[in-house]
Amino acid sequence: MQDKLTLMIPGPTPVPETVLKAIGRHPIGHRSGDFQEIVRRTTDQLQWLHQTSGDVLVITGSGTAAMEAGMINTLSRGDRVLCGDNGKFGERWVKVARAYGLDVEVIKAEWGQPLDTEAFRSALEADTAKQIRAVILTHSETSTGVINDLQTICGHVKAHGTALTIADCVTSLGATDVPMDAWGIDVVASGSQKGYMLPPGLSFVAMSDRAWEAYDRSDLPKFYLDLGPYRKTAAKNSNPFTPAVNLYFGLEAALEMMQSEGLEAIFTRHSRHRAAAQAGMKAIGMPLFAAEGHGSPAITAVAPQGIDAELLRKTVKERFDILLAGGQDHLKGKVFRIGHLGFVCDRDVLTAVSAIEATLQSLGLHQGKMGSGVAAAAEALN
Amino acid sequence: MQDKLTLMIPGPTPVPETVLKAIGRHPIGHRSGDFQEIVRRTTDQLQWLHQTSGDVLVITGSGTAAMEAGMINTLSRGDRVLCGDNGKFGERWVKVARAYGLDVEVIKAEWGQPLDTEAFRSALEADTAKQIRAVILTHSETSTGVINDLQTICGHVKAHGTALTIADCVTSLGATDVPMDAWGIDVVASGSQKGYMLPPGLSFVAMSDRAWEAYDRSDLPKFYLDLGPYRKTAAKNSNPFTPAVNLYFGLEAALEMMQSEGLEAIFTRHSRHRAAAQAGMKAIGMPLFAAEGHGSPAITAVAPQGIDAELLRKTVKERFDILLAGGQDHLKGKVFRIGHLGFVCDRDVLTAVSAIEATLQSLGLHQGKMGSGVAAAAEALN
Repeated sequence: MQDKLTLMIPGPTPVPETVLKAIGRHPIGHRSGDFQEIVRRTTDQLQWLHQTSGDVLVITGSGTAAMEAGMINTLSRGDRVLCGDNGKFGERWVKVARAYGLDVEVIKAEWGQPLDTEAFRSALEADTAKQIRAVILTHSETSTGVINDLQTICGHVKAHGTALTIADCVTSLGATDVPMDAWGIDVVASGSQKGYMLPPGLSFVAMSDRAWEAYDRSDLPKFYLDLGPYRKTAAKNSNPFTPAVNLYFGLEAALEMMQSEGLEAIFTRHSRHRAAAQAGMKAIGMPLFAAEGHGSPAITAVAPQGIDAELLRKTVKERFDILLAGGQDHLKGKVFRIGHLGFVCDRDVLTAVSAIEATLQSLGLHQGKMGSGVAAAAEALN
Repeated sequence: MQDKLTLMIPGPTPVPETVLKAIGRHPIGHRSGDFQEIVRRTTDQLQWLHQTSGDVLVITGSGTAAMEAGMINTLSRGDRVLCGDNGKFGERWVKVARAYGLDVEVIKAEWGQPLDTEAFRSALEADTAKQIRAVILTHSETSTGVINDLQTICGHVKAHGTALTIADCVTSLGATDVPMDAWGIDVVASGSQKGYMLPPGLSFVAMSDRAWEAYDRSDLPKFYLDLGPYRKTAAKNSNPFTPAVNLYFGLEAALEMMQSEGLEAIFTRHSRHRAAAQAGMKAIGMPLFAAEGHGSPAITAVAPQGIDAELLRKTVKERFDILLAGGQDHLKGKVFRIGHLGFVCDRDVLTAVSAIEATLQSLGLHQGKMGSGVAAAAEALN
């Protein structure tokens, strides 16, 4: 039905009306005092969201641009790095690192499994010569719905003493606790179309003091993604290149909404939605793809046995105007994913479970008692 | 006055209501059939705008991202390039080229003067060993309001036989004729907040077949700006990374408006507005900064003698809610610039000239007969 689509994918996520209205305003000059005031306010808000007193810089680009910026501004050609890979985004960072000639040691886990924190610990402990310059990993692996134990890995990196932690927090920031300063994360990359409740187009790189020290040594070529000029202009509430002014309007509005709700409340909400989605799916005999206890608060991946996940997904969209995400790469047709990231309320999760149940029933594929999924999800939301 | 601001800067330029409404829609999934249809239609429209049958790729980023992409996808470390520099943007491309270790020969002209096409010809003719891999230049130099003779320089590059032409058409595309295929331009870079009548956030790189041949040889490291994956996904009406979906909605709407108006009509309109702005300023004794006959159809830079350009600009904004652009770098205070790029009608140009006149009068700085500027501008618009 026209204009009725509900997004339950891990990005773009739904955007509040207040934010859309802000985005639909006439643009203003990006070098004007009025715009500088917006940059000033959003910088404060971004520091709040990242729980950091360091720099949080805004790049017009996708989350990949932010992640690449984090890597190429802190590393040099030939630098040895440890890279976690347990899904499509882990794979991507390995590719970025190799594209720039880094010496990459990959710590792999099966898709659906979390990264083994002990593997990081032993690799870091074995590096007595302190050659590892960075540990690079994805916090919430969007492709598999797995959340990695970033806090524990950060602890191992701290014990190493010289390596940096570079984290893709694209689908974890604004969904779960990512206290950058407390955990000692050096680079946090994120994107607007996720927990931020914004359309895509802005990405964010937060940098610790140690990351800036590494910046001074970095020799990788860059210009648009060179964070030095971003830092310099941010100090004057400005940007090195013309930023996506209208998305900035939305950023301010969205972060205001997030501040009103409060970090704790936001994290609790995401955690409850994860519990509800998981309970609903389990109750109707739909196995979760992520290993038990490692599901992401942003996205629940489901691996229905003997059911074409794409058929289910398409039918849910056609009949109920809910867009679920499909499986990526080799998981296509085997997995579907329920996004519960950003501007999502209890009703949305309950509705998604209901629609999945109703669709299974209409396809003659419901493997339990109709309504048992909704009952379990509702119970989890109590 | 709140919400009354009229932008007459070279970007962001004014955005039509139709486009703003499109941008303010709820986002949809970027991997959905509906979005692929938008990518398909905008790709056709972009080819129309560029007058090319080749690829026009869309990057979420500023114009600088597009220009950098054009350079780093077609060149290799140590490649010899000729780079035109007669303003802030020319300077920027020299910086980008050097950041990537290119061997840059700069052909300079004073700010306000056009690039000397003969200097390009002789440098290219002298290169009998065919070592020059590319000629890089800015078509419309936004900082000075000068349009360079891209067509003639393209001819010299063609005569050279192996070098590519890489052109920053950020403020010329959609303002004046840039027939990419007919002139044989290999890379055209542009940005959304200009002739496109969109807010900032999207940028565009058009690539000729020769540019793609050079791509295969290019060894500069890149990932987010690697155009290979953009080309591959564009063939499937998609994008390698999450694009700025809402700006894409606006892109389709804006290009539809441009197609309705027609290229010839758009170019004529910009040309008339240049004539009116120039005539209006000359009539009140305000010298143009660009050399006679070389003014850009997108922007008119004015160098008022003995008048603080910043005071004038600020007063025009305060009293009449028109934002003019200031001078950049060493021109700050010495130059102001009237943007007449994109969604600008005759009324806007007439109003800008009137407001400048009225402001000069109120400041006791009007050097002629009040109304003579408007009279001359109106005459030019007849």
